[in-house]
Amino acid sequence: MRTLYHYPLCPYSRKIRLQLAEKKLDFTLELEKFWEKRPEFLSLNAAGQVPVLIDLNGSVLADSVAICEYLEETYPKDGSLIGEGLPQRAEVRRLIAWFDTRFGRDISERLVFEKIIKRYLPTTGSSGPDSAVIRQAKNAIHHHLDYISWLVDRRNWLAGDHFSLADITAAAHLSVIDYLGDVPWESHLLAKEWYARIKSRPMFRNLLQDRASGLTPSAHYADLDF
Amino acid sequence: MRTLYHYPLCPYSRKIRLQLAEKKLDFTLELEKFWEKRPEFLSLNAAGQVPVLIDLNGSVLADSVAICEYLEETYPKDGSLIGEGLPQRAEVRRLIAWFDTRFGRDISERLVFEKIIKRYLPTTGSSGPDSAVIRQAKNAIHHHLDYISWLVDRRNWLAGDHFSLADITAAAHLSVIDYLGDVPWESHLLAKEWYARIKSRPMFRNLLQDRASGLTPSAHYADLDF
Repeated sequence: MRTLYHYPLCPYSRKIRLQLAEKKLDFTLELEKFWEKRPEFLSLNAAGQVPVLIDLNGSVLADSVAICEYLEETYPKDGSLIGEGLPQRAEVRRLIAWFDTRFGRDISERLVFEKIIKRYLPTTGSSGPDSAVIRQAKNAIHHHLDYISWLVDRRNWLAGDHFSLADITAAAHLSVIDYLGDVPWESHLLAKEWYARIKSRPMFRNLLQDRASGLTPSAHYADLDF
Repeated sequence: MRTLYHYPLCPYSRKIRLQLAEKKLDFTLELEKFWEKRPEFLSLNAAGQVPVLIDLNGSVLADSVAICEYLEETYPKDGSLIGEGLPQRAEVRRLIAWFDTRFGRDISERLVFEKIIKRYLPTTGSSGPDSAVIRQAKNAIHHHLDYISWLVDRRNWLAGDHFSLADITAAAHLSVIDYLGDVPWESHLLAKEWYARIKSRPMFRNLLQDRASGLTPSAHYADLDF
């Protein structure tokens, strides 16, 4: 069986879970508290980050972008989630990078660190969340929701006519923030409508049942009609 | 003619310049002071970042990873710089991500911002470089040079037997730090030997002649026998 080392509120792990589910590839989840830096885990991925995928043949794959590309190349059945046609594929990859680097760096990584990971670290456990960082990250969400609204006002899905890894990546990041109750959906109705479409796809079911230890999700987190 | 919007000391721009040169694809360079946020440039790339490539057919391509993949898919002649074979391609992409996110975020982006970009920004122009940030970034370089040494002690090139985009990406980041004179080569001789091999490739020539306005490169920057 395929094994995915993940952390429930890691957006990059969620991206791979969604991709695997969308491609109907079976896998088992292995919870990895990556901040503990287990030597056995570091030997799988020197970067010490989730996700790490062990594929059926034993291949060890690290880094979410590398894993996405690997899965598309290895399991091309039922079409590519990166799309067909060179400009289209470039657009999907541009948007993956947009959400992984800009949204990830400025918002999801920061909020998850301040609100959750920090309490597990001996060096930061007692200092509590930094409210200035949280405020800054929450402000930055509006810009991204505006961008999503702008895109889906012109296109069926984020990168064009077809559902793609751009949608999966954006939804993976937003789902983490939504778990924390920090997405201001009501002031971004087009983005909300797009997210509702994603949420109702079968691939998303498993994610909505997810619970991170000691942290209850927001009231509407698993609600398809939020 | 192909046009690449770039900034001379942007490692992501350098990565694409090296890839284009290695693939013997002609292009002209267009200097973009991305921090000025020109509306014409933002209309090409909403993220406001270099590199942006306009290909022969007029396609506008943004984000360095998306551009790399696009160039490999569009111009497959003379073999792939991502490599052959699925595990090999995953390893190349893992290392691209390693250097773009870890080295880029912790070191090259920080040093270029503190030492150069900061002086052009109205909000930070008068504050000068933050010596604590610079010290932290310079300390972090050792870890990456150790990792490069470890890899080339076991492999011919970073990702395996063949020269790849992993080498190009790592060298693009290091070349920027080397311009600033901040690479401690003498305590990492295996990494130095690897970099000397890269530096002597024809694709690198153009980069060694590069000058960023108002900033002289380190004495050994263009020296092949450094």
